[in-house]
Amino acid sequence: MSEHLKKAISDTQARYTADPSTAQVCFTSRSSLQSGLRSQAHMREHSLTVDEPESLGGNDAGPNPVELVLAALGTCQEITYRAYATALGVPRENVSVVLEGDIDLRGFFGVSDDVPAGYGAIRGTVHLESSADAETLETLRQAVNAHCPVLDILTRPVAVELTLDTGRKAVAAE
Amino acid sequence: MSEHLKKAISDTQARYTADPSTAQVCFTSRSSLQSGLRSQAHMREHSLTVDEPESLGGNDAGPNPVELVLAALGTCQEITYRAYATALGVPRENVSVVLEGDIDLRGFFGVSDDVPAGYGAIRGTVHLESSADAETLETLRQAVNAHCPVLDILTRPVAVELTLDTGRKAVAAE
Repeated sequence: MSEHLKKAISDTQARYTADPSTAQVCFTSRSSLQSGLRSQAHMREHSLTVDEPESLGGNDAGPNPVELVLAALGTCQEITYRAYATALGVPRENVSVVLEGDIDLRGFFGVSDDVPAGYGAIRGTVHLESSADAETLETLRQAVNAHCPVLDILTRPVAVELTLDTGRKAVAAE
Repeated sequence: MSEHLKKAISDTQARYTADPSTAQVCFTSRSSLQSGLRSQAHMREHSLTVDEPESLGGNDAGPNPVELVLAALGTCQEITYRAYATALGVPRENVSVVLEGDIDLRGFFGVSDDVPAGYGAIRGTVHLESSADAETLETLRQAVNAHCPVLDILTRPVAVELTLDTGRKAVAAE
């Protein structure tokens, strides 16, 4: 599997270098609110129920959106450790991630304009079992953190453009 | 439900104003890589399988981490529209969100240091059915976008601190 993945990575790098247009991808999500605060999200053929815990007014039918952000970061770190350990030839056994994110809910609830609505800070630990020496693991860590998509998304401001389309507007346009 | 939610929101705002310490919450995620690029994530009692599509070296057992980011944003917008429509007394029927995110995979694959690993841009449409007038809906839209936690997380740089803990280090400490 590792040799197969290593070749897939180097083949992909060669293809993207030769023709950068092949590296452009677009991911999508469609979601809709169901009853209460519960939403159903669809990403290609995958489906996911999102809800708030009862303490935040939901029925706890699934993780909430900010928990999903942590899961996205943790799993992205793991996948990126797997890929870069393979590409760099670093031996690796298990990799797992534990994350915590702090939110001051005065932001979401509009109690204070000085408080951001999202995470004030995220911290966590990557547990990596490897027989490699400390220097090699530090090289791997730096390579992963420089190339982990979700870590980049969280630590860099991303341009987000949202358009509000109301049923009312659609009727008025008839 | 709406009257109940409206009262819950105003009671919460009063409690957070009186004692900001009650507004401090911490969310967590634990995940671990399984076979290939597939990971299993746990958020409280909720579990989620994350994988990459076959085109990116996985077996497509679930959404990938960057798709989860889009699902988190879409569902967070929906929940925030629900909460703020209720708090502001804006009539609202369905709300759904369609999102697209562009990634240049040369970033993840380390082909070019000038290309960010994550989304270059995210764009989408919030579909909201409401009998409210255009001015009221614009007020709602602004309130939602000022208080949506995941929108804030994506558009503002978040401090992320990750520690690498290696099995090797643990052995050395014995």
